[in-house]
Amino acid sequence: MPLGEFELIARYFDRGPAREAILGIGDDCALLAPPSPHCVTAVSTDMLLAGRHFLADDDPATVGHKALAVNLSDLAAMGARPSAFTLALAVPQVDEAWLGGFCAGLFAIADRHGCELVGGDTTRGPTTICITVFGDVPPGAALRRDAAQPDDDLWVSGTLGAAALAVHALGEGRPRSPGDPARMRLDRPEPRVALGLSLRHLARAAIDLSDGLIGDLGHILDRSRVGAEVDWSAVPVDPSLDGLPEPLRRRLALAGGDDYELLFTAAPENRSAIEAIGGRLGLPLARIGRIVAGEGLRLHDARGRPLAVDAHGFDHFA
Amino acid sequence: MPLGEFELIARYFDRGPAREAILGIGDDCALLAPPSPHCVTAVSTDMLLAGRHFLADDDPATVGHKALAVNLSDLAAMGARPSAFTLALAVPQVDEAWLGGFCAGLFAIADRHGCELVGGDTTRGPTTICITVFGDVPPGAALRRDAAQPDDDLWVSGTLGAAALAVHALGEGRPRSPGDPARMRLDRPEPRVALGLSLRHLARAAIDLSDGLIGDLGHILDRSRVGAEVDWSAVPVDPSLDGLPEPLRRRLALAGGDDYELLFTAAPENRSAIEAIGGRLGLPLARIGRIVAGEGLRLHDARGRPLAVDAHGFDHFA
Repeated sequence: MPLGEFELIARYFDRGPAREAILGIGDDCALLAPPSPHCVTAVSTDMLLAGRHFLADDDPATVGHKALAVNLSDLAAMGARPSAFTLALAVPQVDEAWLGGFCAGLFAIADRHGCELVGGDTTRGPTTICITVFGDVPPGAALRRDAAQPDDDLWVSGTLGAAALAVHALGEGRPRSPGDPARMRLDRPEPRVALGLSLRHLARAAIDLSDGLIGDLGHILDRSRVGAEVDWSAVPVDPSLDGLPEPLRRRLALAGGDDYELLFTAAPENRSAIEAIGGRLGLPLARIGRIVAGEGLRLHDARGRPLAVDAHGFDHFA
Repeated sequence: MPLGEFELIARYFDRGPAREAILGIGDDCALLAPPSPHCVTAVSTDMLLAGRHFLADDDPATVGHKALAVNLSDLAAMGARPSAFTLALAVPQVDEAWLGGFCAGLFAIADRHGCELVGGDTTRGPTTICITVFGDVPPGAALRRDAAQPDDDLWVSGTLGAAALAVHALGEGRPRSPGDPARMRLDRPEPRVALGLSLRHLARAAIDLSDGLIGDLGHILDRSRVGAEVDWSAVPVDPSLDGLPEPLRRRLALAGGDDYELLFTAAPENRSAIEAIGGRLGLPLARIGRIVAGEGLRLHDARGRPLAVDAHGFDHFA
């Protein structure tokens, strides 16, 4: 006999009494413990649909990982410390192998970040995952999109374009194999939570790169009412893009989404402190340009010659 | 040209600077204001799918109302005061008439309960709505499912079975018209938020009736490790069920879902205080039985003769 809804929750999602929350799974609501002293609660929500954000035959552990990773990435971009999450899940039927794999991937990254499942909802339908994640941040230290100032340095973590290369290969009908480095960047993004926490009081504005550098930088510029100059030669293009035609390489690195690196601005006097953070975390941090008064993004090459900004970020309805 | 994702958010969902939240729509995370003094944050999430929880051609204002109402009902069942919510929304295309209607229904009930939209996610896909709602409650006053005690009275608000009658009529191929009272109960449930707040420090355990009285009472009994006796003649059956064959009437009232009334337990010495609350709110509160030591639910008629409990609550995977 197939599992019922309540057995499903008990078997896969109820891991015993809440550790951090006051009340976890099994009541009408969860009760969250108060945030740390002097902190407020940061909240983000993301919905992933089969066929759009992942494929029905993707490794379920990868789906579970990514569903929480993209939410943790939003906390990272705010400088917030993860504490808890809720999960609303629709599945077409109770497939124990899929659920077991999904939970393995989900709880591995949850536990690594100290982020506890406190409640949720299960229903039958096309596979759909909606996670809402909670974290703590001192309100004055939150890395807001509207906080960039002229003369701030513009920084980006890690390397860009590998996840977009995997998407591009899929679109070309030549999907990368699951262990391929570019495919790993697409399937198993690592939210930059430790970096976000380290940037409290050092960075001003931040955003995570889910829709591509140009599109996501545009959100900071719009909300901060500033412009930016970006040196293409300083952009940390992922080595998996080596050898591609330059226009494609540039498009993937600047307009491809799914990198989940952090883009942030900081005052120039914080340069050495930020470089030290990169060293401590073992995560390259590249200074790719600066914020300027005015509006718009100007892209230039190593000699300062303008390059066309013809790429747009990802828009689900474009 | 159809609206893009960001224009969609700006036009329909961004209603200006946050009123209660520290930071609302438009950043990586929302920042929630701290809960009221001596309170913690209650959280609940529900996902509604087209074709399962509502129909694609349902009035979109009704869909917007119900999506938030079922979440507010969870706060009510906890005795929590609504404060904020997030919305993840998938729609197959940007249909401005549908979105306008959906938002009208959604924001009408949100504003009536002082519950502010603070963030969300939009994507393209089969119409899917996932709301996560936040409220404040003093942790010691929360109405938990595990708090029922032997000799507690068992109470239920309002009347039962009307929403199930509308579902039944739909299943029989004779759907009720949108203005029909039973259909209104199904489409426009009124979360019992004011009742939940009034029951703080008076009720012990509570749950909202989404899956039917028998199934939902079962959750209280399981988690409180107690049993219950219910007097069928005291159950407030909705008048729209008058004249139905008795077995159907009983099944709809006891096992039909979607009533969104509150079922709660309270010590007998609180009877007059609880009756006064019903009078003040203009909401009938019926004492339908009591909690007993042991386990299981015994249903009896007005003379104490046992009735069969053959109905089960709703299970999405049964």
